Amino acid sequence: MATTSKLVLLRHGQSTWNELNQFTGWVDVPLTDKGRTEAAHAGQLLKDENLLPDVVHTSLLRRAITTANLALEAADRQWVPTQRSWRLNERHYGALQGMNKAEIRAEHGEEKFMTWRRSYDTPPPMLEDDHEFSQYRDERYAMLGEDIPRTECLKDVVTRLIPYWYDNIVPQLVTGKTVLIVAHGNSLRALVKHLEGISDDAIAELNLPTGVPFAYELGEDMKARGAARFLDPDAAAAGAAAVAAQGK
Amino acid sequence: MATTSKLVLLRHGQSTWNELNQFTGWVDVPLTDKGRTEAAHAGQLLKDENLLPDVVHTSLLRRAITTANLALEAADRQWVPTQRSWRLNERHYGALQGMNKAEIRAEHGEEKFMTWRRSYDTPPPMLEDDHEFSQYRDERYAMLGEDIPRTECLKDVVTRLIPYWYDNIVPQLVTGKTVLIVAHGNSLRALVKHLEGISDDAIAELNLPTGVPFAYELGEDMKARGAARFLDPDAAAAGAAAVAAQGK
Repeated sequence: MATTSKLVLLRHGQSTWNELNQFTGWVDVPLTDKGRTEAAHAGQLLKDENLLPDVVHTSLLRRAITTANLALEAADRQWVPTQRSWRLNERHYGALQGMNKAEIRAEHGEEKFMTWRRSYDTPPPMLEDDHEFSQYRDERYAMLGEDIPRTECLKDVVTRLIPYWYDNIVPQLVTGKTVLIVAHGNSLRALVKHLEGISDDAIAELNLPTGVPFAYELGEDMKARGAARFLDPDAAAAGAAAVAAQGK
Repeated sequence: MATTSKLVLLRHGQSTWNELNQFTGWVDVPLTDKGRTEAAHAGQLLKDENLLPDVVHTSLLRRAITTANLALEAADRQWVPTQRSWRLNERHYGALQGMNKAEIRAEHGEEKFMTWRRSYDTPPPMLEDDHEFSQYRDERYAMLGEDIPRTECLKDVVTRLIPYWYDNIVPQLVTGKTVLIVAHGNSLRALVKHLEGISDDAIAELNLPTGVPFAYELGEDMKARGAARFLDPDAAAAGAAAVAAQGK
């Protein structure tokens, strides 16, 4: 008998640098109070819809981890096993990390700005290892050594994320577990691209709101059977429009 | 060359039932605001002392999990791997769960009260499976099936905790990791008994304060090399005295 595997994705709530409209990437900024409220609301939605995770995955960044903690607390689900990996981290934004999106757009023009934000295979300029926003020699990435990213395009994120998907998440889904992944705008875009089979060009148009869980039913091929279902459609639509308008 | 393994133990901050002076056991009550403050303070102590965990273990109960979350947040250490197990749960207090300690003492007398609280091998009366405070058929203990505890003495806790110690924690310590365990008054008493080789009689005198981390250096035999070091000795002494006086 075919089983239906359930996957729930959640982009972290608003962070301090979301609020400042800055490129964040791997810089480990915390949630705002609004972001904390969004996270708890997301957990309440999971509870209301009875979409209770059996296992949770997060990135190594505190905005995703705190979002997961607060959502699980609101869903009475703090006890489920949790795994964390740098492979779920946000896209590394290179030398743009810490810079204001509107200023970058004004300085470099719309085309360059959108290429850096949304092109599939053009990464921003590399971040220098001695920059204050570099993660070079951060203990949590010690296993990457000299291979730690200094910039990434979305294609790079797909390349480093998909091994984690197959090795750590798919084995849980095939046994019927409901899996929650709490991650970031671009690491979730990379995963959605894979799940829905979105082309390299079309993925540029996908914008994900913060703090609204969305669920997929997966077929036996571990791909999406249909479109994602947002648990709070109105908030999701407003949030996606706000992301699309960033820097304008 | 001999390595020194570092182990840090932390009893959760004050819970709502600590505040009400009720036997709690496996009932999943949350922290009070005071308990949340204690948890964050514990994390700050870990940071100040540079006793930063490489890995964290908690029970399946929210008062321990929230304590760990808040402590790790304060210590800038949210990204470390976390494992949870029912084997670190508080002692199951049987039919005493939910009852007021002072009332039990007044009703049953000092001797019975202290036997239930502190004797090594006499469990309280069993909790009925249909009681509102029973964990029978709680999804998180599904793997225990009909063998879920209905009451436990400290000896029972030692029996179910030590396999987890050897299988999950010792392998991390021998590779030089600093391990943090966030658990409960009696599950930590069981572990301390093992680490310090305390006798079945003498363990009755050991009281652990809430919210104050304490550290051991372990020898190659994975036993304590000396006494525990409390990171905030004044708070620890006051807290232990308060626990000893409960129900009086």
